[in-house]
Amino acid sequence: MFEFEDRVEFPERNLDILTVGEMLIDMISEEYGDSFESRTYGKFFGGSPSNIAMNVKRLGARPLVASAVGADGLGHFLIEHLKEAGIDTRCVQQVEESTSMVVITKSRATPIPIFYRGADYQLAYTTELKEALERTKIVHFSCWPLSRKPVRQTMEEVIRDAGRNGVLICFDPNYHPMLWEKGEDGALYVKSILRHVDIVKPSEDDAQRLFGPDTPENQLRKFLDLGVKLVILTLGKDGALVSNGKETVKFDTLAKDVADTTGAGDAFWSGFYAALVKGYPIRRALKFGMAVSAYKLQYMGAVVDLPRLEEFEQRYQI
Amino acid sequence: MFEFEDRVEFPERNLDILTVGEMLIDMISEEYGDSFESRTYGKFFGGSPSNIAMNVKRLGARPLVASAVGADGLGHFLIEHLKEAGIDTRCVQQVEESTSMVVITKSRATPIPIFYRGADYQLAYTTELKEALERTKIVHFSCWPLSRKPVRQTMEEVIRDAGRNGVLICFDPNYHPMLWEKGEDGALYVKSILRHVDIVKPSEDDAQRLFGPDTPENQLRKFLDLGVKLVILTLGKDGALVSNGKETVKFDTLAKDVADTTGAGDAFWSGFYAALVKGYPIRRALKFGMAVSAYKLQYMGAVVDLPRLEEFEQRYQI
Repeated sequence: MFEFEDRVEFPERNLDILTVGEMLIDMISEEYGDSFESRTYGKFFGGSPSNIAMNVKRLGARPLVASAVGADGLGHFLIEHLKEAGIDTRCVQQVEESTSMVVITKSRATPIPIFYRGADYQLAYTTELKEALERTKIVHFSCWPLSRKPVRQTMEEVIRDAGRNGVLICFDPNYHPMLWEKGEDGALYVKSILRHVDIVKPSEDDAQRLFGPDTPENQLRKFLDLGVKLVILTLGKDGALVSNGKETVKFDTLAKDVADTTGAGDAFWSGFYAALVKGYPIRRALKFGMAVSAYKLQYMGAVVDLPRLEEFEQRYQI
Repeated sequence: MFEFEDRVEFPERNLDILTVGEMLIDMISEEYGDSFESRTYGKFFGGSPSNIAMNVKRLGARPLVASAVGADGLGHFLIEHLKEAGIDTRCVQQVEESTSMVVITKSRATPIPIFYRGADYQLAYTTELKEALERTKIVHFSCWPLSRKPVRQTMEEVIRDAGRNGVLICFDPNYHPMLWEKGEDGALYVKSILRHVDIVKPSEDDAQRLFGPDTPENQLRKFLDLGVKLVILTLGKDGALVSNGKETVKFDTLAKDVADTTGAGDAFWSGFYAALVKGYPIRRALKFGMAVSAYKLQYMGAVVDLPRLEEFEQRYQI
C-alpha cells in the first residue's frame, strides 16, 4: 500500500532510475501534410523511456538507459546523444538489426505514426543489465518491449529480478494494437503483467484501448484489481486522478500555456521519479510530476531543457 | 543466343516492361555528415525497379509496376507519385507492414544505407500480377524480392510464368549480403536463379560480391556458365563489357559531365529497354542505354526528367 503522505523507502543504491526499452529515431515532418506531401523530415533522438532518462538527468537524478540500437550510423548518433548528456551507455547494446525509427508526418488531423521496428526488440538480458537491476531504485518500461519477442523474454527477466532486488517497478501502459504482431492479443498480455507492477500511469486513451470505454473511477479500479499498487490516470487538461486502492486523489493541471503536448507524459514521470528518489512523500512527488509536465508544455519538442528539481518548488508553489 | 546485330523478337503485347519488386521511400540527408549529425532528411520516391518504370514511361515505352507498399501515408504517397506519372497502379498492393524505407546519410566516405524493410517483401502472386505477365514483353527485377520470404515465392512464380509466356527475363544482380537474412547464403541463391534469366547487368562490385574478385572477362564467363544469355558488366567511367557467350563487345561511356551517379544504372536499363521494345538491334539498344545513362549523369537525383527516346539518337549520334 502506498499512502499518499508516505515516502517510498528505497534501499541504498547508486542509481535512481533504470529505463529499459525503446531508444529510437523520430523522423518528424517539418511541414504539415495530410497527404504525406511533406518533403523534409527532421531526425530526433526519441523513445519515451530514453526521453525520461534525459529529463531525470537534467532534474538532478541518476538514470541509466538499457536499450538496443543498430550497429549503424543512427545507432551511433543515439549513443553519442546520451553520452553528451552525461548518461552512462554501458547497457546500450548494438545489434545487427537497423536502429528502430518512427516516422511522424504532422497533420491537422491526428498524425498517424509509421513504425519501423528493428534493433529495439533485440534487447538481450546481459550481465550489465542484470547488474544495473541490482543497483537501481526504480525500473521503468513501456509497452514497446513487451510487444515482441525476443525482448519480451528479457522484460520477463527484468521484472522477475527487479522484484527480487526490491526495485520499484513502474510501467507506462501505452498499449496500442499496432505495436503487437497481428493475431496476438496484446491487451491480454499487458493485463497479465500488471500483477508484477507497482505503479502505472495510463492516459484515458490507454485505459480505453486496454479495457474498453468506462468512467475514470472504473478504469482505476480495473488496474487496481489486476494488482497494481498505485494508478495515475492522466486526464489531459483535467489533470490526473490517482488511486492507491484505498483513497483516490484528484490533481489539477498546473499548465497555463500549452505550446506542444508531445513528451508531457514523460515529463510527468520524470518529475515524479526525481521527487520520489529525493525522498518526497508520494502526494508531493505527484505534484512535482504535474509541475514538470506543465513546464514542458510551454515549449516545442519532446525533451526540453529542464531546470533542476528544486527550482520547481518555488515556481509552482509545491 | 542474342546476336548483337539482331533485334529481340517479342510477341504482340500491350505492355512493354513489367517491373516487380521494391518501391520504397528514400530518406536522404540534406547535409553531408560522417557521424550522422545531419538533422534534416528529404523524402523521395525510390526503389530501382520503380525508378526504371518512371524512366521508360518518359522515354515513351509502356511500363507497369508490381510492388507492395504499406497501407499507410508513405504508401499512399508512392502510389500517387506513380499515378501522376501516368503509370497503371493495379499491381501495387497495400499490405499491413510499413512502407519500406532506405535511410541514406550523405558522407564524404562511402554512404552506408540503412534498410527498413517492411511491405516490400509481402508482395503476393495475385491474379493481376499473373495477368500482367501474360501481356508484357519484358519482366525486370533486382535482388530485393529474392532476398526474403514470402516475396521470394512470388518471384519464383513470376519467373516460371514469364518463361511459359515467352517474356524476356531481365535481372539486376545487385547482390548485397545486408539484404539477406543473417545466416542464409544469398549469393548461392542468386546463382541458382541465373539459369532462368535472359539478361543481367552486374556492376564490377556486384560481380565481386557474388563470385569474389576476378578479371572482367572471367566475371562475364561465370554469369554465362550459370545460364545467362547476355551479360552487361558495367565498369563505371570505363563503360561496359557485354558478352553473349560467343562475342564480347566493349562500349565506351558517353558521359562528359558527371554531377551525380545515383540512378545511372537504372537509366541504362531504361534506355536499353525502351530501344529493345522499339525494335532496335541489341548493339544499338545497348548504345541507347549508354546514352540515357550519360544524360542522367549530368543531373542530381535518381530519376531525372528524360526526353523521349528519339531525341537521344541525334544528341548522342547513335
